[in-house]
Amino acid sequence: MQGTVLYGAHDIRFEDLPEPTIQEPTDAIISLPATCVCGSDLWPYRGIASFAAPTPMGHEYCGIVEEVGRGVTSLKRGQFVIGSFFASDNTCPHCHHGYQTSCQHATPVVGAQAPRLRVPLADGTLVATRDMPDADHIPSMLALSDVMGTGWFAAEAANVNPGATAVVVGDGAVGLLAVLSAKQMGAKRIIAMSRHESRQKLAREFGATDIVTERGNEGIERIKELTKGVGADSVLECVGTQESMIQAITSTRPGGSVGYVGVPHGVSLDGRQVFFSHVHLHGGPAPVRRYLPQLIDLVFDGTINPGKVFDLVLPLDRVAEGYRAMDERRAIKTLLRP
Amino acid sequence: MQGTVLYGAHDIRFEDLPEPTIQEPTDAIISLPATCVCGSDLWPYRGIASFAAPTPMGHEYCGIVEEVGRGVTSLKRGQFVIGSFFASDNTCPHCHHGYQTSCQHATPVVGAQAPRLRVPLADGTLVATRDMPDADHIPSMLALSDVMGTGWFAAEAANVNPGATAVVVGDGAVGLLAVLSAKQMGAKRIIAMSRHESRQKLAREFGATDIVTERGNEGIERIKELTKGVGADSVLECVGTQESMIQAITSTRPGGSVGYVGVPHGVSLDGRQVFFSHVHLHGGPAPVRRYLPQLIDLVFDGTINPGKVFDLVLPLDRVAEGYRAMDERRAIKTLLRP
Repeated sequence: MQGTVLYGAHDIRFEDLPEPTIQEPTDAIISLPATCVCGSDLWPYRGIASFAAPTPMGHEYCGIVEEVGRGVTSLKRGQFVIGSFFASDNTCPHCHHGYQTSCQHATPVVGAQAPRLRVPLADGTLVATRDMPDADHIPSMLALSDVMGTGWFAAEAANVNPGATAVVVGDGAVGLLAVLSAKQMGAKRIIAMSRHESRQKLAREFGATDIVTERGNEGIERIKELTKGVGADSVLECVGTQESMIQAITSTRPGGSVGYVGVPHGVSLDGRQVFFSHVHLHGGPAPVRRYLPQLIDLVFDGTINPGKVFDLVLPLDRVAEGYRAMDERRAIKTLLRP
Repeated sequence: MQGTVLYGAHDIRFEDLPEPTIQEPTDAIISLPATCVCGSDLWPYRGIASFAAPTPMGHEYCGIVEEVGRGVTSLKRGQFVIGSFFASDNTCPHCHHGYQTSCQHATPVVGAQAPRLRVPLADGTLVATRDMPDADHIPSMLALSDVMGTGWFAAEAANVNPGATAVVVGDGAVGLLAVLSAKQMGAKRIIAMSRHESRQKLAREFGATDIVTERGNEGIERIKELTKGVGADSVLECVGTQESMIQAITSTRPGGSVGYVGVPHGVSLDGRQVFFSHVHLHGGPAPVRRYLPQLIDLVFDGTINPGKVFDLVLPLDRVAEGYRAMDERRAIKTLLRP
């Protein structure tokens, strides 16, 4: 088959790759009706995160089970499944506590920007849907694999409660779905920080009540103004830079919560600033597996439509164009059809 | 009157000071049957924290109301009261959320190592007891003013739940009372990190089930061993150094909680380490005011006896000796009698 490989900064190639095969008895092979590019793929694409080139790309996936290893007991050929970017056994103590991305046997899933994919620890990782989703549901199901579950974790980690005032830092796909998640959890006021018109529009559609375009100290001042000097109950940090973390911590009221899901790049927190801020901090790689059954139901019953974050659809062999469009912020998120 | 003043590192003097008087209509003057030295007093005493010398010392207090300003409505002369190291109005949004140490009008209380003390914002700050405590209760009432409330906040911030495994980092008065707090909140296993025999003994008396004497990487390994490689549900950080914070974060299981109450000195948290640890972080200056009514009841009914942390009693005019004994770790905490 052909799949996506990163050779160096801005050097994405679509080229011949070995067909995925069962390597461990706990593996499954699935075929992918659609795949996509993640905001986190842009870190190595931009040369900011180091990686061993060439590296197969893609970690968001849903699709049809084609084959399972002899150790797989809960899945069978023909089922529609969704998994997370980390494979997990779903039985260890960390999984038991709902932190499957810290599974004692966690394994990254790689190579999903391709027509077919090997998923390790299939029983623990994959969640089968009751019914076969129709074509319209596929983008939303694909979004559950990472960005929707990650936005949901941001809202949960930020302890969004009914009636809360929430701020979302970051207007990528995760930030926009963090808005949607905060809305689902009952936030009364949702302030989205965004300076891009198309993203502001989608944020409003997902439930944002206010838009703040300022950043840095001006952004912090603006949040303080909007909250009468108190700060927000919940701040959802969906970027991962030093500036965005400081924005999040200083926008939160004492006793409020910051949920952070942006993978940190160059972030260092001053102990005194954190201490005297009196905020709760929680986050990390989202344990998407924990949320999949609930989120699948919300997609099927039409409550949420996270697939709306895909504003560019390309054939898989034009994947490099999909990266470029996201890198230049012309697209929020690129969906690719094999 | 005479009171305690810090002139420089290791230079504590007991000398003539102006009698405290009502300066604002919201002030109260209280007389102190006992006062004490705090572990946090040792930071400036050791020259680690900077201060404007000469500075009056002492921020832990309980005693009899002698005089109130004309704006004070809820207190009267002769009542026994306890307050926290930060005066607070107890009406602003932050107080309303239970974070009185972040009160929009928070004011440090200073000069409590003396026979009498001015307390600002008396209505919001002071809690009167129903009955007059007898002499035996005074040390425990005094402990509520800071160290007991701070240990309690550590346990609450670390989300100690019935059946939990808790680790306490630090064996000062706050650490020992954090053990007692974790026990009250139902922790099944309480691991105290201490290398001092007298403190280990009190930790066991307060509810510790295990003692770990190792520190640094060995300490982390030992906690991992004791928790079968999983890590603790709750870690109560009661020191405030880089080493103790790293000890706390790396001893906690993914999804578990670190409650930190040690005032940070030179602490810097690496964003990636925090992110991938998957821990909850919360803490800061303990909102002791929030807990006073509940803790006063627990002292009166004999459930807790936090006054046991005082293992050295001196006349107030020998306060310098009290500092020395704590600095040299010969005493856990010094009680001073005017």
